[in-house]
Parts: sequence; C-alpha cells; structure tokens
Amino acid sequence: MSDAEPPFPQIIKGASFLLAWRLDGKKVLLIGGGLVASGRLYYLLEAGAHVTVVSPRKRLHPETAYRIDVSNTQDVTYLDRDYVGPEEDELKVADYDMVLTAIDEVGLSRRVCIACREARVPVNVADVPPECDFYFGSQLRRGPLQIMVSTSGRGPKIAALIRKQIETSLPPDVEEAIDSVGKLRSELRQRAPGTGGPLGQKRMNWMIGICDAWKLDELGSMTPEVRKQLLDEGWDKNGRILSARDVGMKNNVSARWTELKNKIVNTLAGGNAQVLQAGFIGFLIGAAVPGSIYAARIYQTKR
Amino acid sequence: MSDAEPPFPQIIKGASFLLAWRLDGKKVLLIGGGLVASGRLYYLLEAGAHVTVVSPRKRLHPETAYRIDVSNTQDVTYLDRDYVGPEEDELKVADYDMVLTAIDEVGLSRRVCIACREARVPVNVADVPPECDFYFGSQLRRGPLQIMVSTSGRGPKIAALIRKQIETSLPPDVEEAIDSVGKLRSELRQRAPGTGGPLGQKRMNWMIGICDAWKLDELGSMTPEVRKQLLDEGWDKNGRILSARDVGMKNNVSARWTELKNKIVNTLAGGNAQVLQAGFIGFLIGAAVPGSIYAARIYQTKR
Repeated sequence: MSDAEPPFPQIIKGASFLLAWRLDGKKVLLIGGGLVASGRLYYLLEAGAHVTVVSPRKRLHPETAYRIDVSNTQDVTYLDRDYVGPEEDELKVADYDMVLTAIDEVGLSRRVCIACREARVPVNVADVPPECDFYFGSQLRRGPLQIMVSTSGRGPKIAALIRKQIETSLPPDVEEAIDSVGKLRSELRQRAPGTGGPLGQKRMNWMIGICDAWKLDELGSMTPEVRKQLLDEGWDKNGRILSARDVGMKNNVSARWTELKNKIVNTLAGGNAQVLQAGFIGFLIGAAVPGSIYAARIYQTKR
Repeated sequence: MSDAEPPFPQIIKGASFLLAWRLDGKKVLLIGGGLVASGRLYYLLEAGAHVTVVSPRKRLHPETAYRIDVSNTQDVTYLDRDYVGPEEDELKVADYDMVLTAIDEVGLSRRVCIACREARVPVNVADVPPECDFYFGSQLRRGPLQIMVSTSGRGPKIAALIRKQIETSLPPDVEEAIDSVGKLRSELRQRAPGTGGPLGQKRMNWMIGICDAWKLDELGSMTPEVRKQLLDEGWDKNGRILSARDVGMKNNVSARWTELKNKIVNTLAGGNAQVLQAGFIGFLIGAAVPGSIYAARIYQTKR
C-alpha cells in the first residue's frame, strides 16, 4: 500500500448493477399476456428460457398469442386461465428460476412478490418498481452483441431514444468482428489449454493486443487462414502480435469508401445530421476559396 | 386472433437476458481482492450494496485496498484472510443476496457455485462462464443513465471498444434530459395519482407524447416553471401535448451550432472520422464547382 491517495474514481451511489443473466434451459413463470408480457416473452425466448405463460386467451396481446401458437412445447407452456395466486398448487413460484408479472392487479402482484422473496426466486413486477429485484432497460441485439440502456426506471422513453441513436451509430460489421475474436479466442484456448494462472494471463494479454492492433472492419474480414497465421506466426513465436498489415491484409481503402458512401446515403435518408452538417460546411468553405479568387479576378479584369 | 401471420420478429436464441439488478441495501459476498475483484467492488458500491470482502491484504489490488480503507463499515466489511470454503461457519453463502468470486482456485470456485445453487443465491465466478448465473458487460454511467455492452463472454475487449465509441457519441446534455423527464413524471404522478388502469395508461401516453415532441437538448434545459406550464396548460387541458415552441422556448439554433463546433473540434482531436471525412468530401465538391467555372472562364479568355 502506498501512502499517496490513489486516483480511483469516487463512488456515486444510486446505480443499478447491470447484468447479462443466463436463462438458457431455465424455467420462467410469466403471469399475464398483454402488451408488456409480449415484450417480456420475446426476450425470454431469445435467451433460451422455457416460459410458462398464464393468462386467459381473450386478454392475450396478438404477439403473445402468436408466440404461444408458433412455439413448440419445449419453449412455451400455456395455461388459458387467470392466475389465482402463489397459494395455488399447479403453479408454485419455487418451481421456477425467475418470475415476471405483467398484470393490472397490484394486490395479486404484491402477493407474488412476497412468495418469490421467501422462495428466493428473482422477480420483476411490471410497473411497480419497489416490488422488483431487477428492472429492464431498452435493448438492442446484433447477433452476439447486446446493448442495454437503463435509466433505472426514470425514463423508459428516453432510454429508447438513446438506444435508437446507438443503433444507428454502430459500425455495420460489428457482428463479424465479434465473431472473429470469439473464434480466435477459442482456437487459442485449444492451442494453449488450461484455466487461470500465468498462461491465462498471457492468453488474455495476447487477445487484448490483437484487438488493439486490429480495426473493427479488419477483424470483421479475418478469415480462418488468417487466424491460423496469427497463432502460428504470432502466438507460437513468443506471443508476437501481428497486425492486419503483417498478415498481408492491405488496409482496405475501398471498403472504407463504401462505408462512407453508405453513411452519406443514410444521412440523406434522414440519418446522422452531424455528418450532413459537416459535409455542408465543408462544401461552403470549399466553394468560398476558389469562388473568392474568381471574384477577385473578375474585379481585377474590370478595372 | 387474426388468421394472417403477424409480422413479429423471429426468435433467435443465444441471447442473454439483460437486467438492471437492484442491490441497494443488499448483502454481497466478494471472494478475492485482486484486479478483477476491484472492478466488481466498484460497481457493487455504486449500486449501494453492503459488500463483505474476504482476501489476505497482501493480495489486494491497490484499488480494492483503497476502497476498503476509505469506505465506512456500512458499505464494506473486510476479512483479512483466505476464504476456506462454503463449509465455513463465519461466511455462509445463504446469508447473502449475491456471491461473486474472483480467485484463481477453480476447485474452490466450483464448490462456492454448488453451495450458491443449493441456497438459491445468484453467483458469478470470474473467468469460469459455465459456473455463472450471470455475466458482466462493459459499462458506462452518466448520472441516471447506465449502458451495458455485452458479448455474452465472446469478446470483453471488443465490448469495451464499442462502449467507448458509444460514450463519445452520446449527446452532452443527456443527463439533464433524463432528469427533466424524471421530475416531470413524478410531478405528473402527484397531480394524477394512482397505479395502473386507464389513468396510468393516459399518464404514460402523455409522457411519451412529450418525449416525442421535445428534443434531447430542449428536455435538458426544461425549467421547473416550464414543467408547471406543461402540466397546467397541457395535462390539465385534456392531456394536450405542448412543444418547446408552445411554451416559449425558442428553437435554440445557437446551441446547435455550438454543439456542431464542439463536434468538429472533437473530430480534429481524433474523434469521429466519419464527420471529418464528410466535411472533407464536402470541401472537395464545394471547391470543384466554382473552380471548374473559373477554369472554364480562363480557357474561354485565352481562346
């Protein structure tokens, strides 16, 4: 321990603890089937949960009904009736890994919440923040990439606006880049197996080095041959970090121009106003320089 | 139910279930005190948890040591020793709301995990994905706004790169905008109290209407007087939606130019390459138009 005060960021309480919960193969009880429930059901199924939905069919949102109808029995169990309460024998909250309610009856929701706390089952009660173990945010997914924007319940609509802005600003080949890194990492683990310790640290540092040396678009177009080359001529040679240039991938200028062209097209179609403004200002400045020379010349000629 | 197949997005499994977990006043056991533990501790304390850290002082990361030393006993309990295992009497996993391990001993981590599963306590074991109930992502926080980027463990470094890009692209007054909306919403709840039902729906629709009608920077500079005006002359008059213009806030053009100027300065300082490129192309096009007229004129003059 040093005597000098380390420059670590100060704690500012009031945050939530953001998590990526694993639900693959887990059992979730979803009480309710309306609009809110339909959103919950979508994300639960994407996460690979088995969901038991309890709600009378006449109150199902069309999307909930659709999901129930097209899902197989391994993904969804549907009970076409009202949920009575945590005292009922058929649906015991303790039998589930997570419970979500999206119903209008606050009293019933509270009873579910108490039963879940007793059984230590994570619970979310839609629209009643104090009864929740967790909140949801506004989400986006692009293959292996997931982003959540949360305002801890202070502004779901603003969270959605910010999420949309992030969505338009993501690079187009972000999925491919993550895929490449994932594959390279598992190939590295095969070549240098084992958990933790100095080897784990060396592996991690090498992966970080590669990510620092490669651009997102270069990572996105990394072939299996190039990954092998990185391991053969990089990792195996004292953990050397090879760049895209080192392995003979030329800095892909035409791809960059294509990307820029797409950006401008998107902009004209109502996308990023800042890019459009910058282009417009550039145009004005560009026009002003020879324009003024031209004007000066005419002026001179006339004299 | 309609017979036509509704155009709802298809389920693509493999996602995580992203959550904002509430830890305010909750008890968390953190086993380990190294680099990874120091990051966990930071986010746990920001979320208002009481954290019990168990790790010999000689193995503490400077940040962990710092947090332990400056925190009061309501936030951190520190045990300067090795953790023996889930069988020990002093630290029972069932006494905690969440358990995180960040130690190198895989066998010990596994035993913690099994004990947590039995006690139904959410657990994360650093670096051993199969032993986790949840993963962490790369996070950023700006007051009430929190964003998490997750690759479900496929690329923590790439997640960090994407998080940094998002960080630079966020509007500067995003915090103020969320604050305004949060205040307006709680003032609305005071004026029209009650949970759920048609009133709750009407309140929600009105808030969505306001967020749609106001820009982020306008929301950011909403005063208490303006909020009162929105409620008095908007909500109270049949739930009318007043825009920033309606309440006499002129569309702040100078603020937009300042923002753009900042953007260009950021760009020149190594920020958004797309904006710079768009500006440059604009410059070339701008220069080309009068330039070619000028050239044509000289050509004509010479003939």
